[in-house]
Amino acid sequence: MGRARHPLAPLLDPEGVAVIGASESPGKYGQILLRTLIEQGYRGAIHAVNPRGGSLLGLPFLRSLEEVQGPLDVALVVRPAEECPAIVRELARRGVPFAIVYAAGFAETGRQGEELQRALVLAARSGPTRLVGPNGMNVFSAPAKLNLSGIVPFPEGGLGFLSASGNLGYAFAQEAATTGRVGFSRFVSVGNQADLAIDEYLDFLREDPATRAVLVYLEGFVKGRAPAFLDVLARTAAEKPVLVLRGGRTRTGQRTARSHTAALAPGPEALRAALEQAGAVLLDRADEALATAEAFLASPLPHGGRAVLVGEGGGHATLSSDTAAEAGLELPPLPDSLLEEIRPHLPAYAAILRNPLEMGGISETDPRIYEKVLAPLFSWPDCDQIVLFGGYALYDVRTAAFLDERRTATGKPVLLHDLYAQEDRPAFERLAERRLPVYASADVAVRAAASLARGSRARSRAAEAAALATPGSLDETPALPVGLAELVEQGRTSPERALTEDDAMRLVAHFGVPTLPSVLASSAADAIRAAEGLGYPVVLKVHSAAVLHKTDSGGVRLDLRRPEEVRDAFTTIVSRHAGVAAGVRVTPFRGGGLEVLIGSRRDPELGPLLLVGAGGILAEAMGAVAMRRLPCSTGERQRMVEESGVSRLLGRVRGGPAPDPEGILGALDGLSRLVAAVPAVDEVEVNPLRCAADGCVALDARVIFAR
Amino acid sequence: MGRARHPLAPLLDPEGVAVIGASESPGKYGQILLRTLIEQGYRGAIHAVNPRGGSLLGLPFLRSLEEVQGPLDVALVVRPAEECPAIVRELARRGVPFAIVYAAGFAETGRQGEELQRALVLAARSGPTRLVGPNGMNVFSAPAKLNLSGIVPFPEGGLGFLSASGNLGYAFAQEAATTGRVGFSRFVSVGNQADLAIDEYLDFLREDPATRAVLVYLEGFVKGRAPAFLDVLARTAAEKPVLVLRGGRTRTGQRTARSHTAALAPGPEALRAALEQAGAVLLDRADEALATAEAFLASPLPHGGRAVLVGEGGGHATLSSDTAAEAGLELPPLPDSLLEEIRPHLPAYAAILRNPLEMGGISETDPRIYEKVLAPLFSWPDCDQIVLFGGYALYDVRTAAFLDERRTATGKPVLLHDLYAQEDRPAFERLAERRLPVYASADVAVRAAASLARGSRARSRAAEAAALATPGSLDETPALPVGLAELVEQGRTSPERALTEDDAMRLVAHFGVPTLPSVLASSAADAIRAAEGLGYPVVLKVHSAAVLHKTDSGGVRLDLRRPEEVRDAFTTIVSRHAGVAAGVRVTPFRGGGLEVLIGSRRDPELGPLLLVGAGGILAEAMGAVAMRRLPCSTGERQRMVEESGVSRLLGRVRGGPAPDPEGILGALDGLSRLVAAVPAVDEVEVNPLRCAADGCVALDARVIFAR
Repeated sequence: MGRARHPLAPLLDPEGVAVIGASESPGKYGQILLRTLIEQGYRGAIHAVNPRGGSLLGLPFLRSLEEVQGPLDVALVVRPAEECPAIVRELARRGVPFAIVYAAGFAETGRQGEELQRALVLAARSGPTRLVGPNGMNVFSAPAKLNLSGIVPFPEGGLGFLSASGNLGYAFAQEAATTGRVGFSRFVSVGNQADLAIDEYLDFLREDPATRAVLVYLEGFVKGRAPAFLDVLARTAAEKPVLVLRGGRTRTGQRTARSHTAALAPGPEALRAALEQAGAVLLDRADEALATAEAFLASPLPHGGRAVLVGEGGGHATLSSDTAAEAGLELPPLPDSLLEEIRPHLPAYAAILRNPLEMGGISETDPRIYEKVLAPLFSWPDCDQIVLFGGYALYDVRTAAFLDERRTATGKPVLLHDLYAQEDRPAFERLAERRLPVYASADVAVRAAASLARGSRARSRAAEAAALATPGSLDETPALPVGLAELVEQGRTSPERALTEDDAMRLVAHFGVPTLPSVLASSAADAIRAAEGLGYPVVLKVHSAAVLHKTDSGGVRLDLRRPEEVRDAFTTIVSRHAGVAAGVRVTPFRGGGLEVLIGSRRDPELGPLLLVGAGGILAEAMGAVAMRRLPCSTGERQRMVEESGVSRLLGRVRGGPAPDPEGILGALDGLSRLVAAVPAVDEVEVNPLRCAADGCVALDARVIFAR
Repeated sequence: MGRARHPLAPLLDPEGVAVIGASESPGKYGQILLRTLIEQGYRGAIHAVNPRGGSLLGLPFLRSLEEVQGPLDVALVVRPAEECPAIVRELARRGVPFAIVYAAGFAETGRQGEELQRALVLAARSGPTRLVGPNGMNVFSAPAKLNLSGIVPFPEGGLGFLSASGNLGYAFAQEAATTGRVGFSRFVSVGNQADLAIDEYLDFLREDPATRAVLVYLEGFVKGRAPAFLDVLARTAAEKPVLVLRGGRTRTGQRTARSHTAALAPGPEALRAALEQAGAVLLDRADEALATAEAFLASPLPHGGRAVLVGEGGGHATLSSDTAAEAGLELPPLPDSLLEEIRPHLPAYAAILRNPLEMGGISETDPRIYEKVLAPLFSWPDCDQIVLFGGYALYDVRTAAFLDERRTATGKPVLLHDLYAQEDRPAFERLAERRLPVYASADVAVRAAASLARGSRARSRAAEAAALATPGSLDETPALPVGLAELVEQGRTSPERALTEDDAMRLVAHFGVPTLPSVLASSAADAIRAAEGLGYPVVLKVHSAAVLHKTDSGGVRLDLRRPEEVRDAFTTIVSRHAGVAAGVRVTPFRGGGLEVLIGSRRDPELGPLLLVGAGGILAEAMGAVAMRRLPCSTGERQRMVEESGVSRLLGRVRGGPAPDPEGILGALDGLSRLVAAVPAVDEVEVNPLRCAADGCVALDARVIFAR
């Protein structure tokens, strides 16, 4: 092998397992879990421990850990919370590498539980023991036939699953066992992550050859572990699909999640952006998670985001194309040349032909129609995958083989929707043998196809993110020039923990964000002289680190065109800021163009984020600010300008040619370097960055340091 | 009875049915449909017609219509499209009131099919015969045991279903038959609506006592029928829930729908607004349609939009609250007093308590927990309905009775999600006996609850819309004063079919939209004089009916503060519009506030629509314009200001107190009256309507007449 064994290998491929709290009573977890362990056919040693003795399925219980003979890698502790620290201390003393603590009643329940959890961790750390949970539920590992779940037989397959919720994990396993559609390679309900954190399990799945795709139910992070998770996520997603179902994707849900796992979560939007940046395929419905995973396990990743929908029924065609449009799946219209090839096989009254393609019911009488119609579609370069809708459960062996063969040869996924998918029909067995997914809902089939399309983009984003996360991948950030370093130090230690606007502008200018010349005036006459030097019209702004919202405080006067207007503005501004104004700054006035906001803020969990959105009242109106975790690639910066709607708005700027987004990208790059070079910065914002055909220029900037 | 029989009664409760094209061959529709008719136990006379004779299930075929004895209300024509006109002509000659034409190959397939369809309609109109279809599929009527669907037994119940798609209708019926969850009162696949239109069937369902809720799959309208449908919809939805699943809710889907049913559909956003205004509950997933219908059939309409989620599993709690937030269902946090009542029944480690409420797994061992926890929640006035999630299939007879009794007593719906809902377990039978809906997906349960909440709002909107649609409900619109009538006539007959801005402002001012004084200047000196009379700063605008986009053409200069600026602006504007400018208009300049767009445009299908949205570049940025069909109620106007985001933006206007939305509502009322009084108007737009703390004022207006 040569490759070192993963540190979690003894947990998921253990040579011996002890159940502490084994029970003979049906309904008790100490009985249920032991039973599933035995019945699934675990191949290592099983040590069942109960001080009162007893036996289950012919396995006699040991009275204490003292009696354990043979290998012991994992101890499953099925005892009430209060007893767990003492048990774990004993396991640590004996050098047992892993303990799974099943009970709830720890950090998720408040202060007392937090203390109990701390005691548990201290107990583990008194030896080499690593903890799973507490407040977890199921662990399953197919290669080891290790089943601690209560479900027998546990469906085996290629999906690695990590769940932040015991019940949800159980529900998914139950669903998989009932439908027989998806099987698992490894499965861990991670519980409170008092010790082992979700990123460590994910790192195991990354290396695990038995795991072909990963599903994570995520509610947040143990304090400080978000960056580690995102880095492992990127490295994993660069190799195999990682589907993430988030609990807490709304503020409401986040509040619930916080009571549930005591985990910390960044704002839902920031977390969404960071997960996608790291290559996760996000799911937003629990009831589609396994259906989507099935598509990923069965299918190659499509080459792009375009699909062809083919099937029966005008209503299904219409609704499927609606669903595709909403899910972001492109449906390129079939060109005439292709239609000419297909048309002769369809009835004359077939009416929906461009994509979706509706076969006019002919598949009900002619099963060969699939080959005739689909062969040219598989060969069409604009088709990245195919969704068959409205089927009548009439697939023979030859059709299944044809679909599978074409899928393999072209690398294009095939998903099916069938009217009878809820029933047992032989046609579906033929498809199942070929791992061709069949759905009872056309919505789900189309949405799974859209997820596959996102999966292909996600993989390249993961590769970008993984490359940036590699140590040494970033250029060294040169030190600040002495003068700027002093400014920063002054600002950092000032009562406001902020730079004046002027200093903020100097700092962003140093990192390549274009700014306008400006003059600090301490009298009206000064200001008029400055205006004449800069050229009318001008802007006057109060100069003070103490005033954060200058417009609201009446500290800004725009578009001043004459000396009298400048004089009047100066007097007003100074009188409104008596005692805090260190003068008034005069700059040229630039109207028109589009006002954009760019910035960075430090999220307590995710670290520094880069932001872009429309500026001014547009920001309120759109409510859409695109975010990325730093460092972020050039490609991500381009995507965030798109995503924020700023690209679209640039095309709508009146009076002259559309501004070029390059200026915004350059400014974003500058802010990224600023944040890397000045780690004390908590928040930096350029708002507005005025973008016009003659370029971008920062009209205002703020820099705030961490308290 | 006293009440007249509905004109469609003989179609859905016929005394005799003929199958033209009856067949003995399994797999042929002429056999399948006749068989289902017989097997469902249709109580009237059945006449099977086939020129070659034969029999099915003991029923001998007649050789021709000549041989029919006894009542004949409905003829089902199962013959190829080309033969149908002749058959229908014969039916018309015999005075058969209804013919159902099953075949496809008519208007949905192009020109030739359109002609065939015209021939079919002409044939029917040669007598009293009304046509169902063509290109329809299934008709079912529970009271008559009339089953023309191919599915036996067809599930009977309280849902009336109209489908614009044959296959989709069949798929739903099949799903209902398989799951046994929903039954139908009446069911019509409406096909191409060559004669009978979907509004006529809906009107029957409105009156039908067997129908307790209605589901419509809609793709568009036969030309000119949209208003009739919306009016019947409002009258129906005021009495019973009407769920509408739309095909073509995206532009992509709309293109597909157009090929499918040859129906005309307004823009997806306008149609969405009009349907909701008329009281429809819109569905956006086909795979949730029956699940949602089940909730409506089983439940009273909740009193409001607030729900309490109660159940097992932190992950389910989190995800359910996410789904609730996304679906617009409010989750009010439980107050301390209520918690004190409930807390003692839950384990100490139960952590999610405020709403969702998670019971810490106790329902697995104590089935009485439901009564203890739910009784106070049913009594809580802030709870409008209850969703139980994460159940373990442990409901006994007493729990089911309790839920049903409390639901009836309080009028609060109860929906359940259970981990084992996909399996047959006795617990579910107990719930089914009480009509308590159980879902395998918590997402679907919560979304069905959100639909119920929308159902309660929908009913009151339907009542408002129905009242406005009643003839005579609107005040008489007084005639225009002579001067304005002349202006309108000039504009209507002008080459531009438009008013000048000045005339447009006069017209909107007449209907109560506030405007500013203005002066038309024909020389720079005139303009300066006007500016001095009005007071600086001023705006100069080109005065010309030929220039529709004055800003783009350089025809507007804002914020002019001195005579020199006015002179310069005048010269520039005139030189840029040589030959088309009829002068330059001078008005006071108003800066600040929020720019709002209000207007009306005539949709070819829906008639005049009222519009409101943010003005200027905000309109581009938000992309959100709220629309309503006219006439619309005061309540709808308030809702559209909310929906457009304008209310929210009003709160963000800087420099002074927030503007009052009353001004916008008044202006919307004015435009509504204008459109009613001047039917020649095709489009009217006030953009911007400047809204500030001192009121709203129109700064620009356009009026365009129909071509």
